[in-house]
Amino acid sequence: MIEVHKKIIDHVGARPDKGFKATLFETPRIMLGMNCLEPGQEQKAHDHPDQDKFYCVTEGVGEFLVGEATFTASAGEVVFAPAGIAHGVRNASKNRLSMLVGITPWKSI
Amino acid sequence: MIEVHKKIIDHVGARPDKGFKATLFETPRIMLGMNCLEPGQEQKAHDHPDQDKFYCVTEGVGEFLVGEATFTASAGEVVFAPAGIAHGVRNASKNRLSMLVGITPWKSI
Repeated sequence: MIEVHKKIIDHVGARPDKGFKATLFETPRIMLGMNCLEPGQEQKAHDHPDQDKFYCVTEGVGEFLVGEATFTASAGEVVFAPAGIAHGVRNASKNRLSMLVGITPWKSI
Repeated sequence: MIEVHKKIIDHVGARPDKGFKATLFETPRIMLGMNCLEPGQEQKAHDHPDQDKFYCVTEGVGEFLVGEATFTASAGEVVFAPAGIAHGVRNASKNRLSMLVGITPWKSI
């Protein structure tokens, strides 16, 4: 059976050129992973036509866009982008932004 | 559009007779919600034949069972139960256990 227990802190990281991504678990039904943005980095607005996406902020503060809405979310807050709705996030703070993310369904495996 | 931004703390709670559950977001693809167990409460081992489930512990410590594995998970740790694998969790601590949970796909709506 696949590994079933992981610590978020072991899957946090940074890249100088773009956001850091790590996969924690994946099945045809969902990909659960970490997205991390250093200060000034952003995930540009995009959408997944047939997949829902959520972000659970685990560290830091993000400036989110979901559809027409823009708002700030911090650790302990959850952001949901239903299939077909544009979404993006920017780290305008001075600290790392880390998010547990899920994309469902997951068509890559 | 549905509400796209929620705070975990607003969806934590307790019931004297059994675990507390709250739904944050739901689509045909996923249900994201909170499961909370007071000291001594448990979610008995069960499985979802066609649905994956994950728990992200947001507060406290849980004693988890996934398949043949038993282990403790605390805040900041993620537990994944693939479709068809028995899973359960017990709060053997003296403090509340709160978990963001996801079940995918979600057939109830």
